[in-house]
Amino acid sequence: MAPVTRKPVFLLLFFITMLLAISNFGSALGTYKPCKEMVLYFHDIVYNGKNAANATSAIVSAPEGANLTILAGQFHFGNLVVFDDPITLDNNLHSKPVGRAQGLYFYDSKRTYSAWLGFTFSLNSTDYEGTINYIGADPVMLMTRDISVVGGTGDFFMHRGVATLQTDSFEGDVYFRLRVHTKFYECW
Amino acid sequence: MAPVTRKPVFLLLFFITMLLAISNFGSALGTYKPCKEMVLYFHDIVYNGKNAANATSAIVSAPEGANLTILAGQFHFGNLVVFDDPITLDNNLHSKPVGRAQGLYFYDSKRTYSAWLGFTFSLNSTDYEGTINYIGADPVMLMTRDISVVGGTGDFFMHRGVATLQTDSFEGDVYFRLRVHTKFYECW
Amino acid sequence: MAPVTRKPVFLLLFFITMLLAISNFGSALGTYKPCKEMVLYFHDIVYNGKNAANATSAIVSAPEGANLTILAGQFHFGNLVVFDDPITLDNNLHSKPVGRAQGLYFYDSKRTYSAWLGFTFSLNSTDYEGTINYIGADPVMLMTRDISVVGGTGDFFMHRGVATLQTDSFEGDVYFRLRVHTKFYECW
Repeated sequence: MAPVTRKPVFLLLFFITMLLAISNFGSALGTYKPCKEMVLYFHDIVYNGKNAANATSAIVSAPEGANLTILAGQFHFGNLVVFDDPITLDNNLHSKPVGRAQGLYFYDSKRTYSAWLGFTFSLNSTDYEGTINYIGADPVMLMTRDISVVGGTGDFFMHRGVATLQTDSFEGDVYFRLRVHTKFYECW
Repeated sequence: MAPVTRKPVFLLLFFITMLLAISNFGSALGTYKPCKEMVLYFHDIVYNGKNAANATSAIVSAPEGANLTILAGQFHFGNLVVFDDPITLDNNLHSKPVGRAQGLYFYDSKRTYSAWLGFTFSLNSTDYEGTINYIGADPVMLMTRDISVVGGTGDFFMHRGVATLQTDSFEGDVYFRLRVHTKFYECW
Repeated sequence: MAPVTRKPVFLLLFFITMLLAISNFGSALGTYKPCKEMVLYFHDIVYNGKNAANATSAIVSAPEGANLTILAGQFHFGNLVVFDDPITLDNNLHSKPVGRAQGLYFYDSKRTYSAWLGFTFSLNSTDYEGTINYIGADPVMLMTRDISVVGGTGDFFMHRGVATLQTDSFEGDVYFRLRVHTKFYECW
């Protein structure tokens, strides 16, 4: 009789194990594999009073004494920028855009370059159609920074995850390019 | 002996199926039914220097050269508006409010009317008591736009979902009414 | 034979019960216990034109007619503040910071003191290393206010929850201290 009672128990254990693997319940290791991931770049050209044709963003708020065409002193503290930046698959500003990064960032520290981001990737390509919403702190001087993917629509319906930011390039106070490695851990 | 070993296996399969149904794991169809949904309207009256008594929102940031009482040119690019708008059950501005929509939006494109929203529905009625937090891109010229419901409190504790926005009406640069169809897919 | 078939059923029921307890599926009571929680304080000193050395935040947007060193009239409606505030374990401004609260708040009502917050806790201590992202409405005059924890990174990877805010102290228009009781209900 023994094998008869054992089998279901074994199956149960197998099932529990499988379920834990799927759901990440109680993982002691803390290592999760994304269910979807992608690397994209976006390009920000700040309006400086002379580049109206090319600029993709503009300073719209500034602390006392600063103006709206030159980033403020003290690590740009208090400057808030609204942007509508092209997203590309590689690090070339002139590559065909696959969507737009739209939102705001602002510099929030007087002690170092540090920003905060709230934005949306609106993707519209053969690969993806939908939006991804991000917020988080961006301590610019670190090699990599992690922000949250807090939701999505379309192909990214209800997705959540983490995105790792890297400053891929910058030119003075006018241009920077951000590499965004988006890792979804809830994919629906 | 066969039926004895079979029964638990059948139960296991039944349980797995039930669990998949509950959790939406691996749905091939990609169609989900909201666990809760509602349609609400909110009404935004932008301060234009003359309507202080009625205005529910105000321009607080603007790009270089623009001011704070007239929405900027170039599709209002760079204008950031702070709002505290009444929420109603129907499309009548004068209906009894069931709460307030509080947050910000800003116009982020020089090529078309396009905005970005971060706001909270603070509901306080016989039906609902609690808050719902939204962020997302709002490409205003599209008939419908989807943003993310990223969290909630009170009756909407830990809720997540998607909200579909429609411009229900607008009058020049002073008034607009947004229809918000909120669909929760995580209800707790 | 009876005990042979019964055992797996009992195990299944036990497992289902355990799973429901873990996942909070279908709780009829609506009472959930946090999987992690913590109480922290952050301290905001608004720049007023005279306190550049100590200020941790600055007004960067204001409605028409207001300036950037004095909070506007009408319950500060339209003022948007960017901050980089120290976080402490107790209510003492001079305690060793365990991290920084970085983000924005703005006053959004002409009828009462009411704000909206979007910010990140960047924690860097022996206890925690990681970021927590918050958004939500802050009706300042209420004893307690609930906002959403919409994501996290590092030790707070993919966390979600609710945070209860209390104004722990304030001094005129220059200083306030917020008590933040963060309760995570998704811990990963």
